Amino acid sequence: MLPFSRVSIIGLGLIGSSVARAVKAAMPSVRVTGYDAEAHVRERVRDLGFCDDVADTPGTAVIDADLVVLCVPVGAMGSVGEAIRDDLPAEAIVSDVGSSKQSVAEALAAALPGATIIPAHPVAGTENSGPDAGFATLFQGRWCILTPPADAPEAAVEALQTFWQRLGADVEIMDARHHDLVLAVTSHLPHLIAYTIVGTADDLEEVTQSEVIKYSAGGFRDFTRIAASDPVMWRDVFLNNKDAVLEMLQRFSEDLTALQRAIRYSKGDELEALFSRTRAIRRSIVEQGQDDDAPDFGRKH
Amino acid sequence: MLPFSRVSIIGLGLIGSSVARAVKAAMPSVRVTGYDAEAHVRERVRDLGFCDDVADTPGTAVIDADLVVLCVPVGAMGSVGEAIRDDLPAEAIVSDVGSSKQSVAEALAAALPGATIIPAHPVAGTENSGPDAGFATLFQGRWCILTPPADAPEAAVEALQTFWQRLGADVEIMDARHHDLVLAVTSHLPHLIAYTIVGTADDLEEVTQSEVIKYSAGGFRDFTRIAASDPVMWRDVFLNNKDAVLEMLQRFSEDLTALQRAIRYSKGDELEALFSRTRAIRRSIVEQGQDDDAPDFGRKH
Repeated sequence: MLPFSRVSIIGLGLIGSSVARAVKAAMPSVRVTGYDAEAHVRERVRDLGFCDDVADTPGTAVIDADLVVLCVPVGAMGSVGEAIRDDLPAEAIVSDVGSSKQSVAEALAAALPGATIIPAHPVAGTENSGPDAGFATLFQGRWCILTPPADAPEAAVEALQTFWQRLGADVEIMDARHHDLVLAVTSHLPHLIAYTIVGTADDLEEVTQSEVIKYSAGGFRDFTRIAASDPVMWRDVFLNNKDAVLEMLQRFSEDLTALQRAIRYSKGDELEALFSRTRAIRRSIVEQGQDDDAPDFGRKH
Repeated sequence: MLPFSRVSIIGLGLIGSSVARAVKAAMPSVRVTGYDAEAHVRERVRDLGFCDDVADTPGTAVIDADLVVLCVPVGAMGSVGEAIRDDLPAEAIVSDVGSSKQSVAEALAAALPGATIIPAHPVAGTENSGPDAGFATLFQGRWCILTPPADAPEAAVEALQTFWQRLGADVEIMDARHHDLVLAVTSHLPHLIAYTIVGTADDLEEVTQSEVIKYSAGGFRDFTRIAASDPVMWRDVFLNNKDAVLEMLQRFSEDLTALQRAIRYSKGDELEALFSRTRAIRRSIVEQGQDDDAPDFGRKH
């Protein structure tokens, strides 16, 4: 049983184009309609051919959909909601893929009064952007978190759960506030720190940018991957999950200050104790299939 | 022309065992003698067979060497230098692979007066440790930085340069102080931050460790790889490159505070400007062959 038969995807970048490709791979009979605000992206998607149809307005994209998935930066959810309001079928389920969930739930509820809205977040991605960067297997073995509001119809939640499972994801259901806290530490804070350190390195007077690049294999390059992620998407994440991000940032800064003090006063035991503890967490991530165990992420040597 | 014919390697972990394997692969006629302070490591290396000989004391390991490479944590360089002093041939060159260079130069000069000492640092590694983790191609296409003292014999520097080139590395010669500053930003600061964030995540009350692990694909897992590196090695690096690390840490903290403020006051333009700038650095690292361009580090999906 297919959970949906006509899926509309608004926003055809890395995630939107991966959802479209994954739907066509897993459920070929489902009709996929795409829309992107950029004309050149729509043109490119027509060439790539992973949508059955590419609409030229958001309204025509959703007009006969039973599932609409908004794959736009979280700051744009409200205006996209308004743009589809007049054409959205009454029985359609509206979902999204945004990295913050409380703000999206509020923006969509305000823009689409009476609609069935079930926010979602597939925890998957790469550092690349745009419709060429997507691929059908992006969600395989990754988690997708649904944050249905308390009054969401159970059948709608189950249909969306089945949809993501068919795309290869494991589904978890969670309160939106808790989602925002969990992702603040597992995703938003790491991105913020990666952006910061790459910026810090770029600003040095005594060390040239060419030296930073040459010797990046010492650890720095691991930060540059996530610091190459889409700037607008991430700007919106930080502005829309402000409280949780600021809370995590405060804790991180305290911990970093403690470590700085341990270095200044040569407290080797404190350093070694922390460095030993963190090794175990890495092991668990590999054991649970959320990363490769190939040394150095399988990089070629 | 082989630069050396009898190479002794003291310390047979990830790097030492990789040097031994790389020498046997690139220069099979060179005799490689190994020593490790741990009896079980010596036993394991005898089984693995990548050394021609495994000595039971540091003195017997170096007795006929023309190159001695110390592959021990930087805090142990001085005592290892003392342990080989009485048996070191007068014409042997002593080098190392440590991640800080001023402290190593000082420790070895004090322990081995009159010896020819040329500190070196191959900027390569993985998160794994021990003699099983090493492999012959670890240094291929990576940089090896030599920091010869001002009075080092030119022929000795050239021989060591040739040695590393034969192992597949590109060689750069640099002042030890500058090395320590460059590596503080490209390697030491990233490790310190990775250790900190993994610790911060582990200490949260509202988010469980199991949630951190499950949703790590959102960015966190990229930090855990380097936070799984050898704890003793890294303790020593921070204690032995204290000034440069504290300087970089101070700059990083200021930049992070500025970003925190931009989030608090919703300055989206500032965030987007930084996030756009950091993307270009990633591109250069990939172009210069210091990282793969496979999306997501070539992780399987």
